[in-house]
Amino acid sequence: MPLKTLIVDEEVAYSGEQLRPHWAFQTFGLLGDSAVAFLGPCDVQPEHMRDIEDLMSASRIYSENMLHFIIEHFGEGLDLAVWRQRVFMAIIAEALNARLGRPAIRRVGSDLYDGEDKLSVSVASVSLVSSLIHAGVNISSRNTPVSTRGLEDYGIAARDFAEEILRAYARECESALKARCKVRPVQ
Amino acid sequence: MPLKTLIVDEEVAYSGEQLRPHWAFQTFGLLGDSAVAFLGPCDVQPEHMRDIEDLMSASRIYSENMLHFIIEHFGEGLDLAVWRQRVFMAIIAEALNARLGRPAIRRVGSDLYDGEDKLSVSVASVSLVSSLIHAGVNISSRNTPVSTRGLEDYGIAARDFAEEILRAYARECESALKARCKVRPVQ
Amino acid sequence: MPLKTLIVDEEVAYSGEQLRPHWAFQTFGLLGDSAVAFLGPCDVQPEHMRDIEDLMSASRIYSENMLHFIIEHFGEGLDLAVWRQRVFMAIIAEALNARLGRPAIRRVGSDLYDGEDKLSVSVASVSLVSSLIHAGVNISSRNTPVSTRGLEDYGIAARDFAEEILRAYARECESALKARCKVRPVQ
Amino acid sequence: MPLKTLIVDEEVAYSGEQLRPHWAFQTFGLLGDSAVAFLGPCDVQPEHMRDIEDLMSASRIYSENMLHFIIEHFGEGLDLAVWRQRVFMAIIAEALNARLGRPAIRRVGSDLYDGEDKLSVSVASVSLVSSLIHAGVNISSRNTPVSTRGLEDYGIAARDFAEEILRAYARECESALKARCKVRPVQ
Amino acid sequence: MPLKTLIVDEEVAYSGEQLRPHWAFQTFGLLGDSAVAFLGPCDVQPEHMRDIEDLMSASRIYSENMLHFIIEHFGEGLDLAVWRQRVFMAIIAEALNARLGRPAIRRVGSDLYDGEDKLSVSVASVSLVSSLIHAGVNISSRNTPVSTRGLEDYGIAARDFAEEILRAYARECESALKARCKVRPVQ
Amino acid sequence: MPLKTLIVDEEVAYSGEQLRPHWAFQTFGLLGDSAVAFLGPCDVQPEHMRDIEDLMSASRIYSENMLHFIIEHFGEGLDLAVWRQRVFMAIIAEALNARLGRPAIRRVGSDLYDGEDKLSVSVASVSLVSSLIHAGVNISSRNTPVSTRGLEDYGIAARDFAEEILRAYARECESALKARCKVRPVQ
Repeated sequence: MPLKTLIVDEEVAYSGEQLRPHWAFQTFGLLGDSAVAFLGPCDVQPEHMRDIEDLMSASRIYSENMLHFIIEHFGEGLDLAVWRQRVFMAIIAEALNARLGRPAIRRVGSDLYDGEDKLSVSVASVSLVSSLIHAGVNISSRNTPVSTRGLEDYGIAARDFAEEILRAYARECESALKARCKVRPVQ
Repeated sequence: MPLKTLIVDEEVAYSGEQLRPHWAFQTFGLLGDSAVAFLGPCDVQPEHMRDIEDLMSASRIYSENMLHFIIEHFGEGLDLAVWRQRVFMAIIAEALNARLGRPAIRRVGSDLYDGEDKLSVSVASVSLVSSLIHAGVNISSRNTPVSTRGLEDYGIAARDFAEEILRAYARECESALKARCKVRPVQ
Repeated sequence: MPLKTLIVDEEVAYSGEQLRPHWAFQTFGLLGDSAVAFLGPCDVQPEHMRDIEDLMSASRIYSENMLHFIIEHFGEGLDLAVWRQRVFMAIIAEALNARLGRPAIRRVGSDLYDGEDKLSVSVASVSLVSSLIHAGVNISSRNTPVSTRGLEDYGIAARDFAEEILRAYARECESALKARCKVRPVQ
Repeated sequence: MPLKTLIVDEEVAYSGEQLRPHWAFQTFGLLGDSAVAFLGPCDVQPEHMRDIEDLMSASRIYSENMLHFIIEHFGEGLDLAVWRQRVFMAIIAEALNARLGRPAIRRVGSDLYDGEDKLSVSVASVSLVSSLIHAGVNISSRNTPVSTRGLEDYGIAARDFAEEILRAYARECESALKARCKVRPVQ
Repeated sequence: MPLKTLIVDEEVAYSGEQLRPHWAFQTFGLLGDSAVAFLGPCDVQPEHMRDIEDLMSASRIYSENMLHFIIEHFGEGLDLAVWRQRVFMAIIAEALNARLGRPAIRRVGSDLYDGEDKLSVSVASVSLVSSLIHAGVNISSRNTPVSTRGLEDYGIAARDFAEEILRAYARECESALKARCKVRPVQ
Repeated sequence: MPLKTLIVDEEVAYSGEQLRPHWAFQTFGLLGDSAVAFLGPCDVQPEHMRDIEDLMSASRIYSENMLHFIIEHFGEGLDLAVWRQRVFMAIIAEALNARLGRPAIRRVGSDLYDGEDKLSVSVASVSLVSSLIHAGVNISSRNTPVSTRGLEDYGIAARDFAEEILRAYARECESALKARCKVRPVQ
């Protein structure tokens, strides 16, 4: 099925609890693979942290205001999710750099940096029926646990940026599906 | 196993025949997952074209001189290869833009462009034992079937660039493997 | 991707050679999962027989005129194909019985019978990139190697019947995809 | 392993809690793939509903008396379960129509209808070790949340019908396994 | 990634709770595939028993002192784990027999025996991200629920034996990975 | 399906050509997973060598007389085949040592040794529909390319030994299948 995308009008406070199978279906009626964007604060409690390294280091995953993306693909595993996630972060970096007119944003695995400042948090996980990705891009860079930059610092409107990213990711998914269907295997 | 990387000293003319399982093992003794770079012309005959769209449109896959990468991952399928390939092309675009100091290079799926000029060819395929990716970045932009740009046009030394890309891809693979091993599933 | 369906206007003689990956893409431009119907004779040569039992028994897979279906699903294996095939044959039986107004047609695995007369041939196979199903329903029942019945014997127009079957199978695929995306796993 | 089948002598009230891995092993000692039939009422509480659409619509899954089937296949995923489930429902429809002597029962995905009356409930789900299918066929059609028909309305003895269905499904599983082992792949 | 191995210096009482994903990472910082050995008593409570047969028979899984191994492989399923487990038990039997100079130890599936005396307990299970194996070899044979033998009875030092086994299993894993990368498929 | 086993009465010269899908079905009518034993010389031509290391080193895989086993498991991949193969070789070593009354035979991965003398050849490979294992145990140790030992040197009757090994492997497969069906996953 083609990816379904949605930008939520209301603010949603991201607690990590949203990164679960069928959240997009149960909350917004999106049945199937989906990418949902929303704006809101980010404060992930340990029981919803998926990266064990974060848990062990007692990291705080916190931001006053972020542009969040929740992505779900059914019938896929963690391996694929991890590589999808990196493509998704590359798309965000590509879009930011194109807007800034200079390659200021570096992608390091699934993290985005401007110099030493961190722009994003992201995790890829898996349930029994789907793979799940959360990516959050700072809007505000105030009061964050580490030095950060946010869309506000670049004068980028979050909702407009969300639309660009969702469109680009939907295109990426469609072209990846097509690629899979038009390549001859190697004997 | 960690990715094995190699830059071949001698020129190799890429005919498409190199995109086969165990080529890196049989030719260079690299056993396991590998990424091999080499320089040389590119002229893919129809029987070695893997993209059926290229075959059907009787495209010529030709370049006087390219920086080639052949990537092989054992025990992986086409789905994963297609997303790995996009990360790999993003790495190349990221490295080019960082060197140029401006976001000149756009990635569109698995293709790289500078404005309307094409910089690259790439295909991901699969055999019964491994996934296989070929990516070629033009060094020369002369006499190509479509309007292109090459590393020479940017004053970038191909071998040095190859080293940077292989290093970055090895790091990406290692961090992706680690990500898979430290994330809690969602119940 | 949603299933793409097509009824070919011209007669096609089925030789078994059509049951190969990307046949629908290369012949009709259908990229992705597809179900193609066509009318024509059936004469499968041993080198294109996929069922080894047929090969060993030197069976002749022959019919003067059949309604053929070629189904391809990318990224799927033989196990799933075998069960898809049975659903497909059940759909044909259900449609025939509904038209006949009596449950005359029995499905036995992937075969259809009316009493002792055979109505169909079918095989499910797999390539490295896709699963493939051929199903042929006799139009004519003349000169077949075993006692058969055909759509003509029931006064059923093949092209109209093909449309009904393709529509029903597309609906089945869509509802199966949805089912997969709305079920909670069992812990 | 060949499918193990059982008809339980005692009435069992189906609450949805029975649809879990190893239920047949823990309750009846059936180790491996199994299909178990029993008679009893059906009243599925929300915490055991697997179809999120049912949960969201606050459907009541209720029947005074049903013929239930619980099917478990180890080492299989949800995709395959969804198609197995449809074959299973087709088998029930085929058997009913054969007994009725007219094609009264229509299968729509995993649901069975006689005109507008619903005959069945069914869901396919998955655990980490197995796929699980519940199918319930109304015996009684009294006091159901929607208009239904049941085996009693057709004068069909439930236990005898259960035997026929289990036998047919075991045969289907065996022939599907054989099909997988005698087909040549397509190069 | 190559297997990471560790012998824990402190005694660990095995309760079954240790057989969970990321235990080696969270407890010892071993990220990735790992095999960890430790010494200590064994007393598995029903809620941590993984073998349902043990649960149903109310078996006690108890030993005063055992050499324990916890093995985790990411991205692998139960089928592979079951065969890995048998190779692991074969390694232990091979090492014991080599030390004893006579083939006293028989492997029966995943159990080790000396005559009628049981030497070991073992279970292979699976989580959503990894496969998990526990193997325990008796050090003491006192006060066990069935007649047993232990490393003490053979005068074998447990820590030294643990080192031999971990080394052998790491070698086995490495050679199995290599085997997978150097074999031509059969067309 | 349970493993089907057979000892061929006639001598068969093993050329490597027998290691292909459906060989047991086409030659002996064994449909499904199978293990077939036969006696005969071994001379594998390069085109049938599956281990690329053997091909590259121009090894000769030769023996005047061997006890051969061809094992096929449908629907399984190379990873599992490699670990199955090691269990199979462990079974042979265990049986030999039990007969010899001393642990003379060492298993190193998929090879068996008595001191420096090699007893066996083995390879695991994969086709699109099945995994395939060949194991050959020397009967004669004369005229082999490297120093070997054979069953004759130990006074072991090959046919009787073949029966023991096939029985043990069938038991191993059955108990592995059962293990998979009675273990609770780890949440």
